[in-house]
Amino acid sequence: MADLIYLDNSATTAVAPAVAEAMAPFYSNTYGNPSSLHVFGRKAYSAVAESRNTIAALLGIQPKEIVFTAGATEANNLAIIGGAFAAGNRKHIITTAIEHHAVLHSAEWLRTQEFDVTVLDVDPTGRIDPEDVERAIRPDTALVSIMTGNNEIGTLQPIDEVGRICRSHGVLLHTDAVQALGKVSLPIDAVDLLSISAHKFHGPKGVGLLFVRDGVKLVPILHGGGHERDRRSGTENVPGIVGLAAAARLAFEEQEAVSGKLRALRARLIDTVTRLPGTRLNGHPVESLPHIANFSFEAIEGESLVMKLDEHGIAVSTGSACSSPSLEPSHVLVAIGIPISMAHGSLRVSMGRDTTSQEIDAFLDVLPNVVTELRSISPFKVGG
Amino acid sequence: MADLIYLDNSATTAVAPAVAEAMAPFYSNTYGNPSSLHVFGRKAYSAVAESRNTIAALLGIQPKEIVFTAGATEANNLAIIGGAFAAGNRKHIITTAIEHHAVLHSAEWLRTQEFDVTVLDVDPTGRIDPEDVERAIRPDTALVSIMTGNNEIGTLQPIDEVGRICRSHGVLLHTDAVQALGKVSLPIDAVDLLSISAHKFHGPKGVGLLFVRDGVKLVPILHGGGHERDRRSGTENVPGIVGLAAAARLAFEEQEAVSGKLRALRARLIDTVTRLPGTRLNGHPVESLPHIANFSFEAIEGESLVMKLDEHGIAVSTGSACSSPSLEPSHVLVAIGIPISMAHGSLRVSMGRDTTSQEIDAFLDVLPNVVTELRSISPFKVGG
Repeated sequence: MADLIYLDNSATTAVAPAVAEAMAPFYSNTYGNPSSLHVFGRKAYSAVAESRNTIAALLGIQPKEIVFTAGATEANNLAIIGGAFAAGNRKHIITTAIEHHAVLHSAEWLRTQEFDVTVLDVDPTGRIDPEDVERAIRPDTALVSIMTGNNEIGTLQPIDEVGRICRSHGVLLHTDAVQALGKVSLPIDAVDLLSISAHKFHGPKGVGLLFVRDGVKLVPILHGGGHERDRRSGTENVPGIVGLAAAARLAFEEQEAVSGKLRALRARLIDTVTRLPGTRLNGHPVESLPHIANFSFEAIEGESLVMKLDEHGIAVSTGSACSSPSLEPSHVLVAIGIPISMAHGSLRVSMGRDTTSQEIDAFLDVLPNVVTELRSISPFKVGG
Repeated sequence: MADLIYLDNSATTAVAPAVAEAMAPFYSNTYGNPSSLHVFGRKAYSAVAESRNTIAALLGIQPKEIVFTAGATEANNLAIIGGAFAAGNRKHIITTAIEHHAVLHSAEWLRTQEFDVTVLDVDPTGRIDPEDVERAIRPDTALVSIMTGNNEIGTLQPIDEVGRICRSHGVLLHTDAVQALGKVSLPIDAVDLLSISAHKFHGPKGVGLLFVRDGVKLVPILHGGGHERDRRSGTENVPGIVGLAAAARLAFEEQEAVSGKLRALRARLIDTVTRLPGTRLNGHPVESLPHIANFSFEAIEGESLVMKLDEHGIAVSTGSACSSPSLEPSHVLVAIGIPISMAHGSLRVSMGRDTTSQEIDAFLDVLPNVVTELRSISPFKVGG
C-alpha cells in the first residue's frame, strides 16, 4: 500500500523493517519458553532480559520496574485497577475527562467496586489545571491518572507539576504515555506508573509495558504462573517484547530528528487548514505532541470526510480509532467545550516517522476540494 | 537449533513455517487498526473477521462466541473472574487441585473478593469423579472450572459428563483446553467457556481466545475501547490473530495423523521408561493426551535430570514451565498423591507435530545412562 498516504499514526503504525527483522528469529527458531531450564528456555529468557535492560536504559529506570503487558489497555487497567485495589482503605481516584477509554472505563468499573472517582475538567485547549488536582486530593485518594499527551487532540499535560503535587500528598500518579514515546521526553521522574504500547511507535501490536516505580504495590489483574515478579502472569510474548525493545531503541534514536520534522509539518498543517472557512484547531497550538493535529469543520460529518479522503488514497481519522465505529461525539471534543454539532465534523491528522513533506502537500491539495464538495451536499450551512 | 531434540512442547512450540508466513504481511504492510474506517483499517478488520470465521468453523461455534485474548492466562482469568463477577449473588465456584495456576490463582484471588472456592481432589491417575462435582454444587455455585487435559501429566477429564451435571444444575462450566487443541477432540458442546492458547499448537506467543457460549455474561477484566463486543478491550493483535487461525487450521488438519503418531510414541516411552528400576508413570496410562508422558525417578532431582539431558541436547522439563524456577514440588504431583520426595524427581516429556521416532529413540538411549549417573552421586538410594 505504498502509494497510499497514511496519516493515522495515532491509531497504529507500520512495524519498522528493523523491528520486524529483530523479531523474526523468535518465531520458528529461538522459540523456547523463558521459564524453561534447557537451552531453548535460556535463550528465550536472555532475549526477554536483554529487551528489558535495553528499555530500562532508554527510560532511565531499573529493569525490575518494567512489567510487560499485552498493550497499553492492559497496562492502564493494571495501573488503575491494580493500584486502586492495592491501596487498602483509600477508595478515591482522580482522573480527567479527556483520558483514553482504557483509563476512563477502568475508573468507571472501580465505581462498581465501591470506589469514588473524581473526573477533572480541562480548559478549551484540553489542559488540566494542576491546582484542580491539588483541590481534588482527599485523605482517601489512592491514585491520580492523567495522560502525558492526548491521543485525539495532542494536548500535553503539565505532568511534572502534577507529579510534585501528588508526591507531596503521598498519592500515586499514573500517566498514559502511549502517544508520547518517541515524540516528547517522558515524564518518568514525575510519575509512579507509566503506560506504553509498542504499536504506536512502529513496534508490533499486542505488546506494551507498565513502568512500576520500585516499591509501588499493585494487585495483579492477570493471575497465574507468577511471571513479571508476580505482577502479570502469562507466558512472555518473546518476539513481541524483542520488537518492543527494538522499536523503543529506534524511537529514542530518531526522536529529535523525527519530532523536529513533525513539528514543522504540524505548523504548516495548522496554518493552512485554519485558513479554510469554518474550520478550527482542536487542542493546544503549541503545548502539543508534534504528530497530532485535530480540526473541526462546520457543516460536515467527520466520517464523510474520512471516507472521501480515503477515496483519494489518504488515511486519516475522526479521532480515536477505538471509538470510530460509534456515532457518539468524541468525549475529548465534548470536554474541551466545542458544540456537539461541530464535534461531529472533526478530523485527526496523525503523522509518523515515515511521513513526508510531499504527503502533507498532497493532503493539503485535496482537502479544500473535499471540504467544498461535502459542504455542497450538506443540509447545514457554514456560519449558519 | 536443528540438531537439538525438543521434547517440551507443552511449555511452548515452534511457530510452524506456514503460520509465520501467514502472519508476515500484517507487520509492515497490512498494518492498519481494525477499528479505523479507511482502507488500512478495513483490510485489518477483514483479516481479523476471516480469522474469527476460520476458527469458529473449526470449533463448530459462532464467530461472535470468540473473544480474542493475549493468551490462555488471560482467557482463564476472564472466564473465572469475569464469570464469577457476572453471577450476582452466587458467590461459590468449584475447581480441581490439578488446574493450571492461571485457574487456581484466579480462584484464590476470588477468595479475597468474598467468593467461596471448592477445590476437588483427583484420584491417583489425576482424574476427577463427576459425582464429586455434583456433590459440590450448591445453590450459590456460579461456575465450575475443570481442565480438558492436564499440562503436566496429560490426564484427560470426563468433561462431557461434568457438562451434563453442570447444565442440569444451571451452573456454568469452563474448561482450559490449552493442551487439548490438535490432540483430542474438544468438549466444546459440553461447556460454556473454553480457553485456548496459540503458542501451544505451533502458533505465536501472546495470543489466545476464550470461547464464550452465546448468552453467557462476563464482566470484562480489561476495560477500554469496547473491542470484542465489549468483552475485551485493546487494539486487536492482528498478526497474532491471523497466526492463531493459521495454527488452528493446521492443527485440525493434522490432528488425526499427529495424534496417532504421538500415541504410539507415548506408548513406547511408557513401556521403556517404566522398565527402568525405581521409575513410575505419573498420570493415566490410557485416558491421556497423546503428547505428554510424565515419569518419576527415585533418588533423583528432576532439575538435575533436565540439566543433564540438556547437556545431551535434549530439552525436557520437570513439569509446568511457569513453575520451573520454583523449588516447590508440583501441585499436580502432590495432588495425585505421590510422595513429595518422588515429586522432586519428575520428568515431563511432551512431544509435538515435528517429533520423530528417531528423537524418541535418542532420548531413550541417553536416559538410562543419565539416570544411572545421577543416582551414583545421589545421597539417596533407590528403594531405600
